[in-house]
Amino acid sequence: MVKLQKKKVVVIGGGTGTFVVLSALKNYPLELTAIVSMADDGGSTGMLRDQYGVLPPGDIRRALVALSASPTLRDLFNYRFIKGDLSGHSFGNIFLSTLEKIKGDFASAVKDASQILNIKGAVLPVTLGNVRLYAQLTDGKILKGETNIDIPRTKTRAKIKKVWLSPAANINPEAKKALISADLIVIGPGDLYTSLIPNLLVRGAPEAIKKSKAKKVFVCNLMTKYGETNGFLAADFVEEIEKYLGKNVLDYAVFNSKKPRAKTLARYKKEKAEFIEPPAKSQKYILADLLDAGQFIRHNPRQKLAKTLVSLL
Amino acid sequence: MVKLQKKKVVVIGGGTGTFVVLSALKNYPLELTAIVSMADDGGSTGMLRDQYGVLPPGDIRRALVALSASPTLRDLFNYRFIKGDLSGHSFGNIFLSTLEKIKGDFASAVKDASQILNIKGAVLPVTLGNVRLYAQLTDGKILKGETNIDIPRTKTRAKIKKVWLSPAANINPEAKKALISADLIVIGPGDLYTSLIPNLLVRGAPEAIKKSKAKKVFVCNLMTKYGETNGFLAADFVEEIEKYLGKNVLDYAVFNSKKPRAKTLARYKKEKAEFIEPPAKSQKYILADLLDAGQFIRHNPRQKLAKTLVSLL
Repeated sequence: MVKLQKKKVVVIGGGTGTFVVLSALKNYPLELTAIVSMADDGGSTGMLRDQYGVLPPGDIRRALVALSASPTLRDLFNYRFIKGDLSGHSFGNIFLSTLEKIKGDFASAVKDASQILNIKGAVLPVTLGNVRLYAQLTDGKILKGETNIDIPRTKTRAKIKKVWLSPAANINPEAKKALISADLIVIGPGDLYTSLIPNLLVRGAPEAIKKSKAKKVFVCNLMTKYGETNGFLAADFVEEIEKYLGKNVLDYAVFNSKKPRAKTLARYKKEKAEFIEPPAKSQKYILADLLDAGQFIRHNPRQKLAKTLVSLL
Repeated sequence: MVKLQKKKVVVIGGGTGTFVVLSALKNYPLELTAIVSMADDGGSTGMLRDQYGVLPPGDIRRALVALSASPTLRDLFNYRFIKGDLSGHSFGNIFLSTLEKIKGDFASAVKDASQILNIKGAVLPVTLGNVRLYAQLTDGKILKGETNIDIPRTKTRAKIKKVWLSPAANINPEAKKALISADLIVIGPGDLYTSLIPNLLVRGAPEAIKKSKAKKVFVCNLMTKYGETNGFLAADFVEEIEKYLGKNVLDYAVFNSKKPRAKTLARYKKEKAEFIEPPAKSQKYILADLLDAGQFIRHNPRQKLAKTLVSLL
C-alpha cells in the first residue's frame, strides 16, 4: 500500500497576514508549519514581557488560533479584557505566558498550547532568544522596539534604512528543520519590517531557507503601510526581502492584480495606506486577483490566495 | 453481556476539603460528581466577581483540578501571579471567568473547562444564582460576604448563629439530578459555614438530598476553625449540618479517631485550631484513623478516607 506523503508548507510571518494565509491553507491536505516572529513588544504582549520576563506570546497566539479546530478555544484565545485588572490583555497571551512560567521555557509552552488548542499543523517561534527589534531611519535616527517602529509617533517620519535584532539570536532548531524539509516556503503577507523581516534577522534563518529544496514564494501586501512602506512599488518589497534573505533565493513573488473600488480605497486615506499597483508579469512575478469581496482591503483567504499558493506545489 | 453500572458518588463542598476527597475517590471506578458552593467572594475570585460581574470560579477550579487527568493543566489552573497586572489572580480563575464571558453563562463555561481539562467525572455549581453569604452572630451582628465570615477581622468574635444566602437562589437542575440519582452523597470535609452549609442553603438542595435513594454521609473535619467552629464537639458539627439539611437525613458521620502528635498539634495553636475528639462509636458514627502521615493535619486522601467512604457503597 502506498502511503501518500502530505506536502510540507511553511509559512513565515507574524500578525494578521499570517493568520489569513494559515486560515486559507488549513483547508488543504497539507502539513502546515507557521514560523513566527518573536519581535513583538506592544500592547498586552509588551506588558507581559516587561512584567513577567516572558517571550512575546501575541504572534504565536494568532497563528495558534488560525490553526485551532475548536471554535470555543479560538474565541477564548482571542478574548480581550477591556476593564479591570486584566484590562488590555488578551486571554491567549496570558495563557501562553502562564504556560511558559510553568514549563520553564517558551518552546514547551507553545507545544502544550498547540495540543490543548488541538491545532492542525505546528506553530514555531523563529527563535527562543529574548530579542528586541531596532530600526535605523534614513535620517540616522534609531528606533528601539517593534511597537515604536510599527506605529510612527510623529506625523512624518524618515524611511527605514535597516532593521536588526538585539541581542543577536539563533534560529529555533525546530524551525530550521521545518524550513529545510519544506516543499513550499511562504513569506508573507504581513508588515514588512515588523512581521516578516524580523524572521530573516535571526541567525541561521536565511541559510535554512536557502538550503531548503522548497519553492520559495513571497506574498506581497495589498496596501502600503505608512512609516514602513509608504511610496513602495511592488518590486521594492521584493528588493527589501532579498536584502535580508539573499539575492535569487525567492522563486516567486505573488501580487494582487485587482484594484479595489475607489470608495473602498478612500477609507484607507486617513491611515495613509496606498494600493500597491501590480508589477509587470514575469516568470517570477505571479499576478492574481486576491482581493476579498468585503469592505476591507484584505486577501481573500479561503479561495484565491490559497489556490494560488497550492498551485505552486 | 452484563454491563456493570458504575456507582454514582456525589461530593458536596468547596475548598480544600473537597479537593482532598475528590483526589481520593478518583482512583476508584466510580461515577464522580462534585457539587460546589458558589458563595466564595475573596481573593482572586472576589476581584473577578467585582470587576467582571462573573460567578465565583475559585471552588469550581479546585474541584476541576482535583479531577483533571493532565498534570500540565493542573499546574496551569493552580498557577498564581505574584506581581504585575495579574497579581493575586489564579490562572484557572481567569480561565473560567473568560470562558463565562464568551459562553454567556457559567454552566456552559464549567462544562467546556471540564472537557478542556479532561476531567474524570463532573463538576457542578450548586446554583447558577449570583449569591452572597451572610451570617448573624450570637451577639446580633451581621456579617456580609464569605470572606468576612471565613476570616475573622477581630481577635475575638461571637459564634455564628445562622447563615443564609442573599438573594435566595435555586439549585442548579443538573446538581439536583445528580443528587437524586446518586448511590452515595458525601458532605465534607470542609469549612462548615463557608464551604459546606452554603450548598444546603440553596433552595431545593436539602429536598434533593432527602429524595435521593443514596446513602448520605457527613465527613467531619479533623480540627476546629476559629471564628466558625471553635469549641465544637464532634456532635455539634452533625447538629449544625442537620439544622440546614433536616433531621435524620444523614445515614452516617465519619470522624477521625487518631490524635496527631503533640508536636504537630502545637503548630496549629497560633490559628487557634483544636483537635476534634472522636465521639463514641455508634451505628451512625463511623470512627477511623484518617490522619495523613505528613506534618500537616489533614485527611489521608489516597487510602484511609477513600477506603472508608467506598466501604459504605
